[in-house]
This record gives sequence, C-alpha cells and structure tokens, in this order.
Amino acid sequence: MLIEDYGEEAFLAELRELFAMTAVGVPAGIGDDAAVLAENALANVWTTDMMSEGVHFRKAWQSAGELGRKSLSVNLSDLAAMGAMPRYALLSLGIPAGTPVEFLRELCQGITEQAMQTSVAVVGGDTTASKDGLVISITLGGMVNEGEALLRNGAAVGDHILLTGYPGRAAAGMRLVAHGEASHPSLRQAFLSPRPRLGEGLIAREAGVTAMTDTSDGLASDLRHICRESGVGARLYREALPLDMELEDASVHHGWDIEKLMLCGGEDYELLMTVPPGRAEAAMARLTAVGGSLVADIGFVTAASEGITITGADGAVSDLPKRGFEHFRS
Amino acid sequence: MLIEDYGEEAFLAELRELFAMTAVGVPAGIGDDAAVLAENALANVWTTDMMSEGVHFRKAWQSAGELGRKSLSVNLSDLAAMGAMPRYALLSLGIPAGTPVEFLRELCQGITEQAMQTSVAVVGGDTTASKDGLVISITLGGMVNEGEALLRNGAAVGDHILLTGYPGRAAAGMRLVAHGEASHPSLRQAFLSPRPRLGEGLIAREAGVTAMTDTSDGLASDLRHICRESGVGARLYREALPLDMELEDASVHHGWDIEKLMLCGGEDYELLMTVPPGRAEAAMARLTAVGGSLVADIGFVTAASEGITITGADGAVSDLPKRGFEHFRS
Repeated sequence: MLIEDYGEEAFLAELRELFAMTAVGVPAGIGDDAAVLAENALANVWTTDMMSEGVHFRKAWQSAGELGRKSLSVNLSDLAAMGAMPRYALLSLGIPAGTPVEFLRELCQGITEQAMQTSVAVVGGDTTASKDGLVISITLGGMVNEGEALLRNGAAVGDHILLTGYPGRAAAGMRLVAHGEASHPSLRQAFLSPRPRLGEGLIAREAGVTAMTDTSDGLASDLRHICRESGVGARLYREALPLDMELEDASVHHGWDIEKLMLCGGEDYELLMTVPPGRAEAAMARLTAVGGSLVADIGFVTAASEGITITGADGAVSDLPKRGFEHFRS
Repeated sequence: MLIEDYGEEAFLAELRELFAMTAVGVPAGIGDDAAVLAENALANVWTTDMMSEGVHFRKAWQSAGELGRKSLSVNLSDLAAMGAMPRYALLSLGIPAGTPVEFLRELCQGITEQAMQTSVAVVGGDTTASKDGLVISITLGGMVNEGEALLRNGAAVGDHILLTGYPGRAAAGMRLVAHGEASHPSLRQAFLSPRPRLGEGLIAREAGVTAMTDTSDGLASDLRHICRESGVGARLYREALPLDMELEDASVHHGWDIEKLMLCGGEDYELLMTVPPGRAEAAMARLTAVGGSLVADIGFVTAASEGITITGADGAVSDLPKRGFEHFRS
C-alpha cells in the first residue's frame, strides 16, 4: 500500500508504537509536541546528519532495513568521534508520494534495531511529504563526562596518528554497488552497513588520545580538519596505510587508483586519532582489544609550517591531496 | 554565485562564523564532529521539523530570510506548546545544485536573527546536496523545570478550552500567497512569518493550564490530539471562535468556507490549552497580558463518550471535522 493511501495518522501511530520500544524510561517520547527527557539522563553532545535519495543512497542499492541502520550509524559515528555514549535520536522523514508503506516500515525497523543495539531511545520525529526523493534526517544526542569530549583541536607536535580499520573500503564499495557488481562483498558491506566505532571512541581518552574525528569525508580531508583546528601539520607514510586485500584486488581488477581511494574516499566512518608518542603503542593495543579490528600507526603530527604531507613508497614527500568528498561538486 | 562553484568548505566556514554569534558560552559548537553543551545549561525537551520546497514553501513566496525565520519558528512553537524555554538548535540543509549562495546566506541570516531574538544557540548542522528542492530540517532543544512540561494528556472533564489568536489565518494566507494575491497582508504574514507563542507557553503552567498543544495541524485535528491523549471529549462553540476581520473579508471575496478554514486550516502555530473552570478567566487575562493578543474561551472538555463536537450558530450540535492538514493527501 502507498503512503498516501495509508495516511499520515495511521503511519504515525505505528511509528509511535515501534519507537516506544526503544524509549523505556523516557518521560514523554513520540506523541506530543516535543519529547521530554529524564533529568538524570540528559545528553550534552549533539550531532545531526541528513541523507538524501539520489545523493547518498538509491533504493535499489540496499534493503530498507539496511538504509535505516546506516542512517543512524552515520550519526553514531559522530558521537563515537567525540568519545560520547549515544542516548537519544530524533528522526525526520521527507517521503515522496508513491512510497510503499512497507518500505517505510522496514526502514524504521532498521533504525529501531540499530537504536536498540546501541541503547539509543528514538524520542521524536517529523514526517512530511517530499517533492522528489526520500530524505532521512537524524539528530542524535549522547553523553560524555564534563570536559572529556575529544575535540579536533587537541593534537600536539610529535603525536602519533592512529587510524582504525582500512581506509578506502567504503568508497570502493560504493563504486561496486553503483555499478551493480556482485563481487567483493566486504567492500560493498563497508559502504552499505558501516559499523560505528563506539567502543573505541569510549576508551579513547583513557588511552591517551588528544584529538579525534571520524573519517566520513575521507582520510586526507579529515586529517586536514584536525590540523586546522589544532594549528599543526602532519606527515603520513604511504607504506603505513593498511591495505585491505579486497580493496587491492578490486582496484587492480577495475584499474582504480588505490592511493586516491585510501586518502580521498569518504564514508569509511573509521576513527582518526592523535596520541602522544609514549602512549601510542599501549593505545593501539587497547583500541584493538575493544574493537577487534586493526588499528594502524600511520604517521605523526608536525609543526604547521611543515604542511600536511605524505611520504611515498619511494621516500619522496608530497602534499596530501586537498580534497576529500565534497557534496556540491561531482 | 552558485553553491557548487562556491564550494562546501567555503560555505561551511561562513556558517560557522555566522552561527558562532548565537553560541556564546557553548563549549564546542559548529566545527567538530558534534556539539558539546554546557553541563549547567542542558536541554530536556527536544523537537524536530522538516520543511521541503514544493511542499511547505516555494522560493518565490517569500524572502530567504523570512523562510529561515519561519523554519526556526515552527520548532519554537513546539517548545512553546510544552511550556519550555528554547536553548539549542541543529540545522540540516539539503541543497539542490543551482542554488545561489546569496540565497543560502540570507536564509541562514534569517535563522540567526530569529535564534538571537529567542536566545537560541545554533550549535550544529549538516549541509548536503539534494537531488531536487531545498530541504530544511531543524532540531530544537529547550528547558522546562522537572515535571512541569505541559503535555497533551492532562485535560480533565469540565476544563475550559482556550485558544490564542484567530484560527484559520495562516491557511487563508497560504491560499493568497499561492495565488499571488497582494491583498490581505496580515493573512499572508500569518502564513509566511508565524510568531511562536513562547511567552504564553512559559506562563501557561503557572496560569493553571492542564494540557497544551500548538495548532500546526489545524484546530480540529490538534483538539483531537488532546482528546485522544487525555481520554476525553470536547465541545466547541462556533460563535465563540474568534473571527478575524481580514479572514472574513477574504473568505467572502473568494467564496471560501470560513468555518472549514477556522477548524481545519493548518500552520497557525497558536496555542490550544485546557484550564480548570475556576482558573479560566484569570488565565485568559494573564495570557493576554503576556502575549498582547486575544485569548478566547472556545468550549469545554467533556467525557469521551460525548465525542468531539461543535455547537453551530443555530444551536445544532455536529461532530468536529475529522481531518486537519495531512501531508500525504492533497
């Protein structure tokens, strides 16, 4: 049945019941003009992300449930990058006429599953019509101890630069998905179902991390953000970037520039961190133990005057690419 | 200059500077993965609203600044309806290619003006491309004393039903704007620049209000929400509904059904409240004094078994219309 035949009131009543499962203990969740949160469990860290059909996703690329989970995961990744524990989500949906209500139901079930797995209460929302294309906008609030949020501005000269996971996998996965390729499932998975690094984010401060961000825009771009906010430079080592075997295989097969994918590919949702040299090794061990995934030491923080550079396999030093993913250029 | 030529980084840098003016005292606003709020000024009431081009607005209908102010005002109205004081906003923009950066700048200046007038800090956001049509999604957090939020579920049999302002004006204004009519400026203004009833909302509990909502969906629909949540019925009086002179004039001129506009017209963003009979008169006086606008006593709360009805000018009783504004029907 299409949403315009099913009706807004009926759909809202369903959503209210669905999301109430996530919001146990919330004084007033969905169903009033606004949500009321419990005084002893407020949120002091907030982020928001919008995903648009035809820009971030196409309906044919994944199931509605996967899309729902990802729309929450990209926000969870932002809170992970602050070292925060997620708590509350508000969801806005812009829904084009002709959308099957089953699709929307599955989408919201995916959001609910991901919310319950990460102890997030979906407490508010808005549904509205969209002229063309589904729009999913989620705002997420979480908690971190006072003064302990990990910002981008704490990197100091000499800090090591650590990265979780293998860069470039999501960008490669998006290419495969966009071209309907059935090969390299782990790359497609990296794009369609990113895993936010919540555990790693939560222990990062204790492990000595001084600055942190997620790699949603691509490694080079996100490293530039840390450098700008901290007033420092950086040097990466090409040979230190962890190379995913499927990424290598797909790149060889399709003739892709693998270094460009690793440095400029967006949507990895890994964590990029700086750690003082004396603590780097122990931090890597702790982060690996928590997340169960590789954590690599890919370079170090320099004075701003030294720029933001990469040492190639041949030892030659060059500037890191200026651009990662930008939404308004193709 | 178009946004795709101007570039996302440059536009974000501008927004960061603009919204920083609103966020004095916020530990970390725009510019990191998420915003960090001050521990002694958190928000316990949260709402979100999405506005889509071609559904809620057209660019030709109003200035970009008016559109910006309205996109925040519809959220402010939700917090007013909880009796909450607004504090923090997060803004997501879905921006189609071909949008002039000047338009976006003016839009965000409108949001900033409205934010500063209502002591709201814009602390976070996301900008992304949109396939077709501008999308504005705002999430707003505010504060109310513990246990004092005014929900929809507190109405009791015998309570008077109070309404701020004149119902139906915004719906009439939208018709005029959509047809390019230059007449009846106050109606067009009611649609394009709604004034959230923050002052009235803040004193409502002290004035004895038991349940409250804003009239974004239309009087009949929003009264039904209170009745459903409170488990009560309601009786309105046609003759008690305050009749705006411009609305009467425009309705006669265009042959509009004025009662339907008053009962079913959406987007008024007035406050609809219930108050025990002994406190109704004093509440009306206080609400009028705070807001400087008419507050009318339009009916009373009944047992659920009596239904939701209206007594006409001729004394005949009929059911209140079932539908106000629904997004997915035309």
